[in-house]
Amino acid sequence: MTEQIFSYQQLSQFIQKIFLAIGCSLNDSCTATKVLLSADIRGIDSHGVARLNGYIRLWEAKRINSNPTIKIIHETPSTATIDGDAGLGLVVAPYAMQIAINKAKNVGTGWVSVGNSNHFGIAGYHAMMALEHDMIGIAMTNASALVAPTFSVERMLGTNPIAVAIPALQQPPFIADFATTTAANGKLEILQRKNEDAPLGWVQDKNANASTDANILKKEGTLLPLGSDREHGSHKGYALGSIVDIFSAVLSGGSYGPWAPPFPAYVPMPENMPGKGLGHFFGAMRVDAFRPAKEFKQHMDNWIERFRNAKPATGFDKILIPGDPEREMEKERMKNGIPIIQSVIDDLKKVGEKFNVTL
Amino acid sequence: MTEQIFSYQQLSQFIQKIFLAIGCSLNDSCTATKVLLSADIRGIDSHGVARLNGYIRLWEAKRINSNPTIKIIHETPSTATIDGDAGLGLVVAPYAMQIAINKAKNVGTGWVSVGNSNHFGIAGYHAMMALEHDMIGIAMTNASALVAPTFSVERMLGTNPIAVAIPALQQPPFIADFATTTAANGKLEILQRKNEDAPLGWVQDKNANASTDANILKKEGTLLPLGSDREHGSHKGYALGSIVDIFSAVLSGGSYGPWAPPFPAYVPMPENMPGKGLGHFFGAMRVDAFRPAKEFKQHMDNWIERFRNAKPATGFDKILIPGDPEREMEKERMKNGIPIIQSVIDDLKKVGEKFNVTL
Repeated sequence: MTEQIFSYQQLSQFIQKIFLAIGCSLNDSCTATKVLLSADIRGIDSHGVARLNGYIRLWEAKRINSNPTIKIIHETPSTATIDGDAGLGLVVAPYAMQIAINKAKNVGTGWVSVGNSNHFGIAGYHAMMALEHDMIGIAMTNASALVAPTFSVERMLGTNPIAVAIPALQQPPFIADFATTTAANGKLEILQRKNEDAPLGWVQDKNANASTDANILKKEGTLLPLGSDREHGSHKGYALGSIVDIFSAVLSGGSYGPWAPPFPAYVPMPENMPGKGLGHFFGAMRVDAFRPAKEFKQHMDNWIERFRNAKPATGFDKILIPGDPEREMEKERMKNGIPIIQSVIDDLKKVGEKFNVTL
Repeated sequence: MTEQIFSYQQLSQFIQKIFLAIGCSLNDSCTATKVLLSADIRGIDSHGVARLNGYIRLWEAKRINSNPTIKIIHETPSTATIDGDAGLGLVVAPYAMQIAINKAKNVGTGWVSVGNSNHFGIAGYHAMMALEHDMIGIAMTNASALVAPTFSVERMLGTNPIAVAIPALQQPPFIADFATTTAANGKLEILQRKNEDAPLGWVQDKNANASTDANILKKEGTLLPLGSDREHGSHKGYALGSIVDIFSAVLSGGSYGPWAPPFPAYVPMPENMPGKGLGHFFGAMRVDAFRPAKEFKQHMDNWIERFRNAKPATGFDKILIPGDPEREMEKERMKNGIPIIQSVIDDLKKVGEKFNVTL
């Protein structure tokens, strides 16, 4: 596959101009660009610039409001519920996470459920906002339904990711960020482009038969919950995805389960939606709400060092700590640039032409 | 396998007398008995009376304090850290969960990390305590290390379960309660008794080779994180187990990772433990801290009904909601009694003889 290398600055300037062009404020354009590109620099290519066109199409379809009035509609000292006013999730989510952080400053922890929002980029970005405050950050979101519960063939849940960021002292932070499915949809898209099969256990066909067809989602197939099948714990992945759905959208008044709004603007909205838009859930916990921060972070250093030095299987050197691969990628890409595949470049250029912005 | 049926009352009276005999207060004996038996009535036989002897041996080894002074050692309006004083986890955990519930009454949510504790029975019991208060309950715990991180062969994590209980209105509550491994250790024990093989993906041998040997843990093998292998997302199960370990034991001052105290009293304590005892983590969130309780619970009814009626795969009738199988089992066993296998009965009788209590 052809690809070209772009610098962070090149992409950043382009994206920001696009967000400005659809009517976002300067501030919101900056935030949305930063969140979107955090995916590309961390190597989660499916959630970065590759999605810009998708957001623009949702704006064209009037499903995204580029100038939202984000409001707290319910709150207690440690919680808030937010109506995102159909804004870009890339903007609504950092706003909501900041409220969680503020609540945690006051009462130890903050928990914010968000409805009437849209796709928020990578969950990890929002969870990581807590780190500089010596807090543990948590972020999750529901998403368009592509996943069948255990023993079902119907699309009921999204890939519903969970991110948890935990600060350390000398060591880099622990940052887990994962879909609650065996494989994220982005992994299937990579196989489609390469014309390769998927491993057994990632997807099933419309009759619940095992399948290795990377295009099966276009044939009424479904993604499988983490665990793949009942014998390997898919009921646990189904439960995790459900918890994310309920915390994000049932608590907030968002649209949950099979009624989650689809990301592709050409897919009609579900009928009889029980709430508005996508939902997210954020948490921030001050570590010094539990024990002195330095003491906690020293023990995190000890935890991380011990796990990194766990006895490896033959052929492996060090055990990975969640966040290691993305941090390595970030270092590499900030130095040497971000490779973008040709089909995404073509897509970006078309978006640019609409608004007279050149890449 | 021979088994005998006992009524809840028979077992309850026996267990309570045993706990009284080791010096627990009347109140603590009642609580510990209730928590322990909640496993048996819900069909999680590995965590109920089958473990009574294990607790007694820990008490004999002076690793369990039957008369603990459980103390809050740090707190904020929404958090507390608790020192369990080496008490029975069966007693320390409900005490801590009650504090989380009290905090939630005051400020919307409550979060409690517990150190210096012991095995707390089933996580689900503690999470379910929140339900009658119209709260979402969360419970997790670290445990003796049996699980190797992805690409490792060393025992670094326990089966570290997560339970989440969410109230509904007419529908029974949503109750997820699962180990963060592909299969819990109890599932292996069942196969050992039947002399059957384990499915591929549950365990690996000491060199990280795939194994179906249900006895492999006795041969330096390890349990695998949920996802089984890297291609099927074991790094996600490893991350989940790690989060449970950190929330339960690094936040609280408990002993984490490979240093978690072992359940079998004959296994020596790890050297250089970085904290005291096992750790747990509890959360309680008032649903009306996010939206009116009745509204939330009506939407949970809608969620549950919709998922229960998702299109089933051929050969299946209804889609299960987390908590369904355990609730069915509870109904059945409260009516018809609890089957106990002969080896467990023999074990209980031996315990009884020590304290002059007959089963």
